[in-house]
Amino acid sequence: MSEALLLHEDPRSGNCYKIKLTAALLGMELGTRQYDILKDETRSPEFLGRVNAHGRIPVLQVGDRFLPESNAACWYLAEGSHLIPGDAFERAQMLRWMFFEQYSHEPNIATLRFWTRFVGLDNLNDDQRGQLGAKRLAGYDALATMEDHLEEREWFAGSAASLADIALFAYTHVADDGGFNLAKYPAVRKWIGRIPQLPGFIAMN
Amino acid sequence: MSEALLLHEDPRSGNCYKIKLTAALLGMELGTRQYDILKDETRSPEFLGRVNAHGRIPVLQVGDRFLPESNAACWYLAEGSHLIPGDAFERAQMLRWMFFEQYSHEPNIATLRFWTRFVGLDNLNDDQRGQLGAKRLAGYDALATMEDHLEEREWFAGSAASLADIALFAYTHVADDGGFNLAKYPAVRKWIGRIPQLPGFIAMN
Repeated sequence: MSEALLLHEDPRSGNCYKIKLTAALLGMELGTRQYDILKDETRSPEFLGRVNAHGRIPVLQVGDRFLPESNAACWYLAEGSHLIPGDAFERAQMLRWMFFEQYSHEPNIATLRFWTRFVGLDNLNDDQRGQLGAKRLAGYDALATMEDHLEEREWFAGSAASLADIALFAYTHVADDGGFNLAKYPAVRKWIGRIPQLPGFIAMN
Repeated sequence: MSEALLLHEDPRSGNCYKIKLTAALLGMELGTRQYDILKDETRSPEFLGRVNAHGRIPVLQVGDRFLPESNAACWYLAEGSHLIPGDAFERAQMLRWMFFEQYSHEPNIATLRFWTRFVGLDNLNDDQRGQLGAKRLAGYDALATMEDHLEEREWFAGSAASLADIALFAYTHVADDGGFNLAKYPAVRKWIGRIPQLPGFIAMN
């Protein structure tokens, strides 16, 4: 990959961390530019016009091209590497867990972390407050699905760590920030313990 | 692909339609088995134990292995075909729009369709009713992001139809079922008109 890589990020975001962890595990150089999402710095006309019309981070900049969506950026960095299974069915299973992460895990576990730790529960509006119970249930449902899968496996897809593990690790290992208790998920906790042993691992903050 | 392909589906689901449309565009044989999600037929012990512990459809069965998540199943069917761009950056852009679909589009546009057309707005619980306004706004925000992208392009990634178009077409072309008005999104409407012209196209129902 000859073009310079620049990550537009907020360091508090687990979605941004996924991309930095992927680059670290692959030994790739990745520049960063920080934005404060609590100050709407990704809603500026310059950001919307040039980086991402959807007003969200992370965005991976590759030369002068822009790639939003954390899991798509991880895929771009890792294609052809050991972080993507060589077998076609296992590769699809990896993507399955990455879609699960964005649909069933992140909107519950990451959102409750964001509201609890960064926005503050006292500052939520009525719409948000009304969703707390449903997001709590759905977050635990996602953890139960992970536990079920990990009871007989060390990694989410194939026989080694893949992007599925990176994507799910980002917010699972800080789930307690959002008030989730992992005591009843021993296989998930063991799996969390495996990730920092990967060569090149970097912590979130 | 030598193993038999069987789709566990509810025919009313756009997520299931994505997989059937992908198979049709590729000329692949795909068996189906129907479940009624309104009768919780995907929450039976047999389904949870054998097909998907997460209790959701679609699930693509490949021989005796099971692959949940609609977009992962589309990927499995289409790998190596003309429905996935050959260029690495465009391939990642395709995945970007597929993750966008699951995170920013489906939970709003598909959920409002499901609540409006199949559950009935009078039958929603208070939690669901409280989310109607936010989902309406977020759905229109997703449509605006699509409009912005399509103003200068015919397809979401690369220079031809890809899985990104299939994934986003599934619920966008029936968005009016959920009360979304596409009048202000002319580029989206033009793009919707391109999909049925693809060789092998099948309609949703």
